[in-house]
Formats: sequence, structure tokens, C-alpha cells
Amino acid sequence: MTPYEIIALKRDGHELSAAQIKFLIDSYTEGTLTDYQMAAWLMAAFIRGLNSTEKHALTQAMLHSGSVADLSAIPGIKVDKHSTGGVGDKVSIILAPVVAAAGVPVPMISGRGLGHTGGTLDKLESIPGFKVDYDLAAYEQIIREIGVCLIGQTREIAPADKKIYALRDVTATVESIPLISASIMSKKLAEGIDALVLDVKTGSGAFMKKMEQSEELAKSLIEIGEAGGKRTVAFITNMDEPLGNKVGNWLEIEECIDALRGNGPEDLMEVTHHLCGAMIWLGGKAAGLDEGMAISREMIRGGRAMEKFLQIVKRQQGDTEMIEHPERYPRSAHSLEVSAAAAGCVAAIDTTAVGIAGVELGAGRMKQEDVIDPKAGIHIHKKIGDAVQKGDVLATLYGDDPEGIKQAAARLTKAYTLGAGACERPKLILKYLDKEHV
Amino acid sequence: MTPYEIIALKRDGHELSAAQIKFLIDSYTEGTLTDYQMAAWLMAAFIRGLNSTEKHALTQAMLHSGSVADLSAIPGIKVDKHSTGGVGDKVSIILAPVVAAAGVPVPMISGRGLGHTGGTLDKLESIPGFKVDYDLAAYEQIIREIGVCLIGQTREIAPADKKIYALRDVTATVESIPLISASIMSKKLAEGIDALVLDVKTGSGAFMKKMEQSEELAKSLIEIGEAGGKRTVAFITNMDEPLGNKVGNWLEIEECIDALRGNGPEDLMEVTHHLCGAMIWLGGKAAGLDEGMAISREMIRGGRAMEKFLQIVKRQQGDTEMIEHPERYPRSAHSLEVSAAAAGCVAAIDTTAVGIAGVELGAGRMKQEDVIDPKAGIHIHKKIGDAVQKGDVLATLYGDDPEGIKQAAARLTKAYTLGAGACERPKLILKYLDKEHV
Repeated sequence: MTPYEIIALKRDGHELSAAQIKFLIDSYTEGTLTDYQMAAWLMAAFIRGLNSTEKHALTQAMLHSGSVADLSAIPGIKVDKHSTGGVGDKVSIILAPVVAAAGVPVPMISGRGLGHTGGTLDKLESIPGFKVDYDLAAYEQIIREIGVCLIGQTREIAPADKKIYALRDVTATVESIPLISASIMSKKLAEGIDALVLDVKTGSGAFMKKMEQSEELAKSLIEIGEAGGKRTVAFITNMDEPLGNKVGNWLEIEECIDALRGNGPEDLMEVTHHLCGAMIWLGGKAAGLDEGMAISREMIRGGRAMEKFLQIVKRQQGDTEMIEHPERYPRSAHSLEVSAAAAGCVAAIDTTAVGIAGVELGAGRMKQEDVIDPKAGIHIHKKIGDAVQKGDVLATLYGDDPEGIKQAAARLTKAYTLGAGACERPKLILKYLDKEHV
Repeated sequence: MTPYEIIALKRDGHELSAAQIKFLIDSYTEGTLTDYQMAAWLMAAFIRGLNSTEKHALTQAMLHSGSVADLSAIPGIKVDKHSTGGVGDKVSIILAPVVAAAGVPVPMISGRGLGHTGGTLDKLESIPGFKVDYDLAAYEQIIREIGVCLIGQTREIAPADKKIYALRDVTATVESIPLISASIMSKKLAEGIDALVLDVKTGSGAFMKKMEQSEELAKSLIEIGEAGGKRTVAFITNMDEPLGNKVGNWLEIEECIDALRGNGPEDLMEVTHHLCGAMIWLGGKAAGLDEGMAISREMIRGGRAMEKFLQIVKRQQGDTEMIEHPERYPRSAHSLEVSAAAAGCVAAIDTTAVGIAGVELGAGRMKQEDVIDPKAGIHIHKKIGDAVQKGDVLATLYGDDPEGIKQAAARLTKAYTLGAGACERPKLILKYLDKEHV
């Protein structure tokens, strides 16, 4: 078995065996397979595709290129959620304390923001002192103590995926559903979970802009999760506008605090309760989704989710004072309001443009090495379906750099499409999928 | 225009513009495009293909990545020959003096042997003192003086092709007709030729084992040559057995000396006279192929080709004494005869296996850095169509390493297939193709 043969087989459209895929991934992790050979293979896999067996084998090979957390000694069914990413998607930060408060352990490994989407880790780090870079031993210990832990992809986890992801990014091999699926699932399966709830975004702010692609991705992820012995269900949710009203790291933490206090925006809470409900159900604490959702709402109403959140912040070395008194957080030097040029109804929001406006304000990064301003971001006042009068404020921008704000304001103005008639609020939860649909 | 966009376009099966292809090749030559990006593009081009316009653009971009010889100040129509490579293919060494003797200038840049096929440069270098590494200025000067020069691909010529060829070799992107065509033609067009005769081999000792592939390659090469303004014709010739009776560097020079003295084996001379005839015709010294072939035969019969060969050897610093007295050349320490195990008729010879047996004897290289033994090789006594009695010698092997000889003997024995009935001699010149066929 040589790398050349394996590349040639995929090039010619043949199915690879699990042993061949493992050899390829192991050789690449060890460095005996070069970047250019992996790039050739990735392009062949992109064009020729990978079937279910190959996807499963690729996921397992990347998963076992590093450590896999073993949480079997911790009682309970461990459940995590994964979102494919969007703008204003702060669900994890509300969901983790809600589900943990309901008695379901939540082991959660998250990512950073890149391009137009934000990242849970960056949002959490906007809380002064909050630490996300624990190793797997500390991660297990924290879950044992408080039933939940939120960390980043440590060096121990799926190193092959890390290397391959960086290579795909520069060789035009990103947008492949099998490669995306294996990348996501290799990290999620390393967390030590028993079950997984997926939030696959679709629409103008998602990586997958079309429903069919999102559905294909959801099915592909479910297939791999179930093949790995983990119960996996998915919601396809709307990302045609930002989720909630705030975009930016600390601004989103503020919105999470509001949400945990029972004052979250309706769309954000609808998505959050669906995902929490499914997790509580899969975690064995409810008989079905509806009961799970009722428990989720109760965790917020009774204050137990907020209590759990404070416990998380404290345990992960964050400043709980800031959570209890968010008004004490430093503010951006500048702000600017973007107003409607005419009367009408918000018909569409180019959500990727909103995300890029956030980057221009300092809230995100275009390159991995860019530094984030935790205070910067956007407060959205008008969303799809809202009627506006000429001069109404659509959004308020926050940032330290007046030039960045001007750029972002111009982009945001263009991102809004105002319609003449009445507009409808978009449907949020578009589809539920599980192994029955694959 | 970014490398990413160009890779993605070819990945999705789109046609690239000449400007995009030039940008890609120039960036790679300069080193701003990485090996892994080029590998991804090559795989996309391998799978999606390149149309005529793209092939032409790729050839031109690789051609102009280095220097192009300008022989316009030298009178006459300059014509070269290119063979796609085989076993025992020593035609260039007979052909160059024949055609030059007929008054057609022959600018010839050749390659080295790799894998089962030999290389003209290695054969020439088995002549003591013979030098092939001249720069383009010296090359032009030698052609001006004696009407012919045989050199290797200097660093000045098509450096992009050199870099891409090495990358294709390790990324399973070799066997692509558009990529092969552009690679061959970028080097040939750099020679300063006006016309080109192609010898596209087909059969068990060729890179292309099937007639259809060989024909496709021939047409692809003609298309690029004609698009580059050079008259280009091709013969598809049989490579189901070694050409001539000797395989190995000095052994083949011996056979060339015999041929130039008028004693060449029939099959070798048939191919040689066809190719020479076409060159003399395209070079304006004959009205057609038949007249060209008659002139070619006359050049040998009258001794003018041998005279020209001695002139070449002398001018390129080789020892003409060895050409005039080949019996003085050192001999291998060991020899071994391979005999027929039964009576019959030679029905087939696995010609690639013969080539590899040559490598085992020391006559070739599997890796670029392997050192060649110029004395080593194989003298073939029985060819397809020959009747043999049990015990008849099929071939004699020469080498310095007794172990290598044993290995090669075992391989050679297996390479022969003896049939029960009468066998036919294979047809040698299978097809003639020019721009009318494209």
C-alpha cells in the first residue's frame, strides 16, 4: 500500500477501504505523507466523492489521530450540540447551562470565529478571566464537578483534522459535504459524548445557502454519528437573518445574560429551546422533545440555568461580577446608527454582509491571526417582517475605530432590503431529521 | 485573480482562460504558488480534463517559463523527432546524423532513462567523453557548425515543466493526456524547431499500452504543435517487443554503429527510415515521405550518415576511436544466457519486464539518483515470430553483479511467451497521423 496507489484509486473513482484511509491519515499525521500528496487526494475526494463507508472510515481515522475523551465513569447520558455556524448564533452559551441544570452532562468543545461567523470561544473569552484552553484531564474533571465544561479544540484532539482543515482552506477543497462531515464529526466524537443534537443552518448567513445542501449535510452528519454508535438528531434552522438582536462577542454575552434572566429575544429562544429540548430528551431526562422543551423553559424560569451559568463562569476562572453586573463592562469608543432611507418593511437581510460588517468593527477575524475587540459589534433593531418608517434606526454599530464603523455602516445599509408591502417573519425551525430520514 | 479561484474553476469543470493558466504557471515557477496548490490543480485538471485551448495555453506558459532557442539565423527548416519512449529505442542516435547528412538541421533536446525505458542522453554518455550538458548558446553554435546537436534539458528550458513533472510523479497525476502533451511540447517547442515528427509508441513496452490511448496522445500532440505554428506529423509504432536486438547503453551504441554501417536489424531500420523520411520531407529536402525514406537509406549506404555521426561525437567531445573500434570498449564482468525451456514460437514478449530486467542489470534507474553501468544490458536473440527449439538461447545478459544477473534472468524467462503454432511478426508502423486527422 503506497500513498500513490491510494491517491490513484480515488482519482479513478474507486471506493477506498478503511485500512487505506487509515494509512493515508496516519501517514499525514506523522508527516511521511506530504502536503502536496494530501492536496491531490483531497481534490480527488472532492470531485469523486466519498460514500458512507468511506466517510465513516475517514472520521474514525481523524478521530483516532489524537486523544478521545472517556467520560464513561461520569454518570448520565452525555449530550452535546453542534451548530454549522451563523451570525449572532450564541445558542451554546445559553444551552449548556440550561441542559446541565436539567441534569444532562454537557461536554462541549467549540471553535473560534473565522470569516463572517462568530465563535463560541471568542464570545466566552470576552468574559474577563474566562479560560477555554484546558487539557482533556481538566475537562473531564470539570464535567465531573459541575456537569458541563466549554473548551476549545486542544492539541490532543483530532490533530489530523486540524492539519487537513488548514490545507483544504488553501486548496479549494472546503465545500465538500463528505469532507465537512468527517471534519465536524471527528471533533465531536472526541468529546466523549453519547448523543448529539445538530443545528444545521441554512440561508444567507450560513455556509450552506440552500435547503437541499443543508439537508444533505444534516443527513451526512447523522449517518456518521449513528455509524459511530452515537444517537444523532438534527434541526435545520433558518439563518436568513442574524439570530437574536446582537452580533459581537461581549454584546452576545449580554444577550445570553438577558436570555438566562428570561428576557431573550423570541427567535433566539425558539431555537435554543428546541435544541435544549432535544438534548434533555436524548439525555434521558424527558420522554420526548415537547417535554424536553418544557423542562428547558422551566430551567430558565426557575433561575436554575442562570445559577449553572454562574457556576460555569466561576469554575472556568471568569469574573462572575461582570455576569451579574454587565453594565460595568467597558464600552466601545464610538457608535453609529444606521437608519432606514425610506418607509417599508424589512424583506431580507444579507446575513453574511452583517457578519462581515462585524469583522470590520473588530468583532471577528478574516485571518486566523487577527485580534478581536470583545466590545465591538452590532445591535440590530429591525429584523425581517418589521415595518419601518423613514429614519427609523435599523441597527447601532459599536467600535473603537471610526473608519471601521463607517465601512461597516455602508455595508449594513446595503444588507437591508426594504419591501413595499407587508413582509412575513421567517419560519425558524425548518426541519427535524434523525436516522429514520437517512 | 487568485490561485484559489483558478483551482476552484477547474475543480468545477470550467474552462480556464490563457491568462489564468499563465498566472498559475508563472506563480508556481516564481514560488508564490505552493506545491500543494499546484497538486490540487493538477488533480482537478487530471479528472476534469483540459480542452485544446487550455492545452495550448498550458504549453505556451510552460514554454515561456524559460528560454526558447532562436535558430532563425541558421538557414534551413529545422526538424526534430520525439519518441514517447520504449525499450531498445535508439532511433535518435541513428536518425540525427542521417537527417543532418541529408541537409536538414536537427536541433535535439533529449531525456534520461527512468523506470523501464532508456534515455538517449544515457546512451550518448556511454561514449567516453561525450558531453550533453551544453547551454543554449553553445547548442546554437554547434548546430550552426555541423547542422545537428544532441543535448539534455538545460536549466534554462521550461523550468515550470521540470517542477510540475516532478510533482506529478508523486501525486498520481502522470497519466493524463493533456498534461503529458503539454509537458512534451513545451520542451520540444523550446528547441527552436520549425517542424516535428512524433514516434508515439504503443504496446507492452510503451507508456500507452492501448492503440486508442496512443492515437489520442498523437492527436493531442499534433494539435498543440500546429497551434504553436509548427508542422507536426506522427507515426504510431509498435512497442510490443524491444526495438532492435540490444537493450543497454553502450550495447545500443554498438547497434547504432552497426546500423550506420548498413548492418542494422530490420525492425529498427524500418522505424528509423520512416521517421528520417518524414523529417527529410518536412525539412524540404524531399517531395514526400517515400522520397525522404529513399534519401535516408542512401545516407547510410553512401556512408555520409556515419561520417556525420563521427563529426557529432568529435564536436561533442566524445572518443571517436571507440566508434571506429567498438570492440575495444570494456565488457561486463559476467554474462548469462537465457534459454527456451521448450520448443515453440515466440508469441509475445512482456517488453516492460525486459526494460526492468535491464534496470536490474545496472543499465537503467528506478530513482533519478541511481547510477548507470554503461556496459550492462541485454542482447536479444529471439523476437516475436521466431521459431525456437528447446535450449535455444533467447537472450544474453551482461552485468557486473552476479545477483542482478540472476534476478534479471528470472524476469526475462517469464517475459517470453512461447506459442505452439506459427507466430506472426508484428506490424511495426501502425498508423500515420497529421493535422488532417485532428
